[in-house]
Amino acid sequence: MAYTKDEFKQLVDDIQSQSWYKNPIGFGIARVDRGQLNKDKILQATFPLINWNENFGSAAVLLNALKVAGENVDTSKSELVCKISDEFLTSCIEAFRPFIPEAKGEAHKNVQVISTLASLPIDSGLSADDYRVVFIFEDAAPESTEAVYLKLYALSTGKAALRSLNLNGAFGKLHNCAWVGNQPIELDWLRANEIVLKLSGKYPNIDFVDKFPRLLQHVILADNTRILETSKVRMGAQLAAGTTVMPGAAYINFNAGTLGAVMVEGRISSSAVVGAGSDVGGGASILGVLSGTDGVPVTIGENTLLGANSCTGTAIGDGCILDAGVTILPGTKITLSDKAVEQLKAINPGKEISNVMKGSDFQGVNGVHFRVNSSTGQTIAMRSTREVKLNADLH
Amino acid sequence: MAYTKDEFKQLVDDIQSQSWYKNPIGFGIARVDRGQLNKDKILQATFPLINWNENFGSAAVLLNALKVAGENVDTSKSELVCKISDEFLTSCIEAFRPFIPEAKGEAHKNVQVISTLASLPIDSGLSADDYRVVFIFEDAAPESTEAVYLKLYALSTGKAALRSLNLNGAFGKLHNCAWVGNQPIELDWLRANEIVLKLSGKYPNIDFVDKFPRLLQHVILADNTRILETSKVRMGAQLAAGTTVMPGAAYINFNAGTLGAVMVEGRISSSAVVGAGSDVGGGASILGVLSGTDGVPVTIGENTLLGANSCTGTAIGDGCILDAGVTILPGTKITLSDKAVEQLKAINPGKEISNVMKGSDFQGVNGVHFRVNSSTGQTIAMRSTREVKLNADLH
Amino acid sequence: MAYTKDEFKQLVDDIQSQSWYKNPIGFGIARVDRGQLNKDKILQATFPLINWNENFGSAAVLLNALKVAGENVDTSKSELVCKISDEFLTSCIEAFRPFIPEAKGEAHKNVQVISTLASLPIDSGLSADDYRVVFIFEDAAPESTEAVYLKLYALSTGKAALRSLNLNGAFGKLHNCAWVGNQPIELDWLRANEIVLKLSGKYPNIDFVDKFPRLLQHVILADNTRILETSKVRMGAQLAAGTTVMPGAAYINFNAGTLGAVMVEGRISSSAVVGAGSDVGGGASILGVLSGTDGVPVTIGENTLLGANSCTGTAIGDGCILDAGVTILPGTKITLSDKAVEQLKAINPGKEISNVMKGSDFQGVNGVHFRVNSSTGQTIAMRSTREVKLNADLH
Repeated sequence: MAYTKDEFKQLVDDIQSQSWYKNPIGFGIARVDRGQLNKDKILQATFPLINWNENFGSAAVLLNALKVAGENVDTSKSELVCKISDEFLTSCIEAFRPFIPEAKGEAHKNVQVISTLASLPIDSGLSADDYRVVFIFEDAAPESTEAVYLKLYALSTGKAALRSLNLNGAFGKLHNCAWVGNQPIELDWLRANEIVLKLSGKYPNIDFVDKFPRLLQHVILADNTRILETSKVRMGAQLAAGTTVMPGAAYINFNAGTLGAVMVEGRISSSAVVGAGSDVGGGASILGVLSGTDGVPVTIGENTLLGANSCTGTAIGDGCILDAGVTILPGTKITLSDKAVEQLKAINPGKEISNVMKGSDFQGVNGVHFRVNSSTGQTIAMRSTREVKLNADLH
Repeated sequence: MAYTKDEFKQLVDDIQSQSWYKNPIGFGIARVDRGQLNKDKILQATFPLINWNENFGSAAVLLNALKVAGENVDTSKSELVCKISDEFLTSCIEAFRPFIPEAKGEAHKNVQVISTLASLPIDSGLSADDYRVVFIFEDAAPESTEAVYLKLYALSTGKAALRSLNLNGAFGKLHNCAWVGNQPIELDWLRANEIVLKLSGKYPNIDFVDKFPRLLQHVILADNTRILETSKVRMGAQLAAGTTVMPGAAYINFNAGTLGAVMVEGRISSSAVVGAGSDVGGGASILGVLSGTDGVPVTIGENTLLGANSCTGTAIGDGCILDAGVTILPGTKITLSDKAVEQLKAINPGKEISNVMKGSDFQGVNGVHFRVNSSTGQTIAMRSTREVKLNADLH
Repeated sequence: MAYTKDEFKQLVDDIQSQSWYKNPIGFGIARVDRGQLNKDKILQATFPLINWNENFGSAAVLLNALKVAGENVDTSKSELVCKISDEFLTSCIEAFRPFIPEAKGEAHKNVQVISTLASLPIDSGLSADDYRVVFIFEDAAPESTEAVYLKLYALSTGKAALRSLNLNGAFGKLHNCAWVGNQPIELDWLRANEIVLKLSGKYPNIDFVDKFPRLLQHVILADNTRILETSKVRMGAQLAAGTTVMPGAAYINFNAGTLGAVMVEGRISSSAVVGAGSDVGGGASILGVLSGTDGVPVTIGENTLLGANSCTGTAIGDGCILDAGVTILPGTKITLSDKAVEQLKAINPGKEISNVMKGSDFQGVNGVHFRVNSSTGQTIAMRSTREVKLNADLH
């Protein structure tokens, strides 16, 4: 038991020096939704807080408490998922005691999570079996629904960079459910109860059927960030502060998103990333690695405009304009006038710029305006009117 | 009353041999939502089960029970809609008695419907007037809201093929309502109560205003089928197992859909059908007969890719690719090189292939890659890289 | 107190003749949603009724009642927002007394609002502080959330013409909230309660995060008007009767909309207006003044078809066709044959029509079919097959 902060520090040092201990990449405690028919099936994990390469003191306390509670804590595996228990909570509270009085607002959130768990009213209908302690020790392919969710949280809270995590096989760890509000429902349960539900007027109003929930079911946006329709952003997407997602044709898939304030009225497919100050116009498509690109995830630079109904299957630099309705795929042949070559060379020192280039040749080329000449139908590139901030390191 | 299954069979034979009897095309029992102001207005019919060219024994029992209950059962009309009554339910239960013990899970679903109706608690707020027995004897233009719903169910459950049913005038049989969850509300009722509802903070949260509900309000998807946002698929659409509908720009209208596993990120307009293994890219449009086609419903073959933001107003074959952003309308003039003509002839024996073709000439032509030459703006066709399975019957 | 309608008229005359009095442009009484943490923050204003250049008798009664109740009624300001009080309601009821018996249905709606307010049950949880009397005396930049809402209502109910109101700075008067049904929630409140809400399974299901609500949260559509998904139309948009908004890629922003029956399957950006009988095809984009136009709000004429995935950044006349996938921006160079010039001159007397025109030159030109020649890639214009009603005044 820790009575002072110094004693807490000593306790943590003791735990961390033990041979079994290993600092986790990420951890948190989730409330889980379990199957209506199959109670062992985890349909969703909701984390009030996640830790990612941080708060190792709390990690030590939680791991130690799991051991005290008799759980098999094997930190040599890539992940650990345990149920909570009274012993676990008691051990945590004893360790966190010096921090409990000041665990409010933004302070000591892991302590708040433990305190809240310990004080949930008995009549809430929730039991210890509805919670999981989740640790990730190695960024391997996730082996549990809970670990997938922890990684999706890491992406969506911005604690892990887009494309930085191993999500191999994640789809296979999630179950396809009917979602009614925040509640996932097994399709089998619906089938088993369809007749009674429909005849009694109690058939649920299903919002969607998918393996993933939506971002807004789990993540609170920054004050200047907006999603005008929740279905438009999947859990696992990342929206930098200041991003606005409109409800027309927009969609942002998991492991995709924005790095700064971006106006999104089009599609940002899985693995695609858009830089600060850019604009994804109405109905514009940024292709994902599975559909129409050459397999390289598409990055859109900063301060770039993808016009309405344009389509991009290859990287676009900073300060570019893609005219409305224009499509640039990796293999698209693009013609440049001598003047365009000269102007683009001037702001892209060291880059190969020539009179005929393919779409994929524009990787890292800034300040390009892609157009179709409406007199000839030719796809052309010229110097855009957008500002490009030259990289000082290159000059 | 039937005490054994043999007696049941005899009872059914007796009914079916009567002069008034006729096997129905489809039938079922629905719970109906009636108008808030006009109780005789049927706003929605929810079927826990529909029968389509099947279960004629149950049909005989139900029709006979309606006669016993004093209903005017005229099988010479194209459809029959009756209220239920105690007499009707009693007659059905007496006939179904041998099957009641085993009517569970997937077995004897019509019996389950009758048993459930007979056992609904009195305090459910529902009365006999909230249910309808619906029969369709002939595929004529529907004459009632209930018959329209029965046909929409036949399409959406896959029991009837897309485009196979007479839906003439269906729109006129449905009422435009405000939908709050699964509850349709008359717009007049909202107007009559607007002041009280708004001032008291009880104005309902309206999901949509339409004549049709959404597919997910009535149909349970297969385990490998996904609709990431309920508004994207209208009741009356048909999704084959394995289909995924994304929430960006996708939409599937009634009497349209997929014949196998299809990724849908674009629009499948009413009457359009997409074959197994195909991909409707982000923002792609498959036009309906009312907008931009030559009046022929558009069919997309199997294993075909419609690129992002492409547009199709005419039939496309198997194993085709429509590049992102390319539009093919029936009258679009498309140029083929001599090599393309030769290669497409090789896999399309017997088809007319020439150096200049119109979009509508490609009906039934497989393995085509439609592109716009970005140097000349010319719309061209060539042999696609997609696999085409040659029809063995033609060789 | 007014005992007869004549006395009411006399009372109104008396008020209107007082020096402080001024007829308002618009007024109404709203129920307001206040912040969960900051009770003085107005998150939403819901008007059961608005008055716009009408019902000045009621305006006089309300303004007088505010003075009687001790409010500072300064009609020299552009707007006035006051709380209600028992004194205010009593004064209104005394004045409206002759009309109370007949204030039902469509009659005397302002009287109904006052009567309803006076009779709200004490246990509704609502207090006088949850209501506001709102007046606009001058169409200046709005200074309060309530005034912004009153103007949005004026637009969305069709009482004020699109683009006719001063909305400068309106965004700044609205707060970005998480919307759960019709309830706006402060993001800060969510943050402060995230741990408890998530662990107890009570985290709300958020529909969207935005400053604006959706049209259907405030406005009841005409019987023949449909919005197939509520997120598709923002509050402040205007839909003329007969308009249908589909759920695919459609979106109608505030201060934008339709002037007659229009089929909307694409985007109508803020400030864009579409004429009666026109069709905005699937995924079509009508650009707003902030993205891709030359700053002139785009007007689409009557009986015009914008094909699927087309894009318009400049005004289009009546009876025009924009082919699927075609983009017309203000600077797009468009080629016309001699025949096209002749035919378009014939139905556009007095207009400049020539062999090469820019997109913006087609302002007010009717009967144009915009296409891309699929053999040459050239953007061309010709006489459309759509009917154009010649303006009789010009002949």
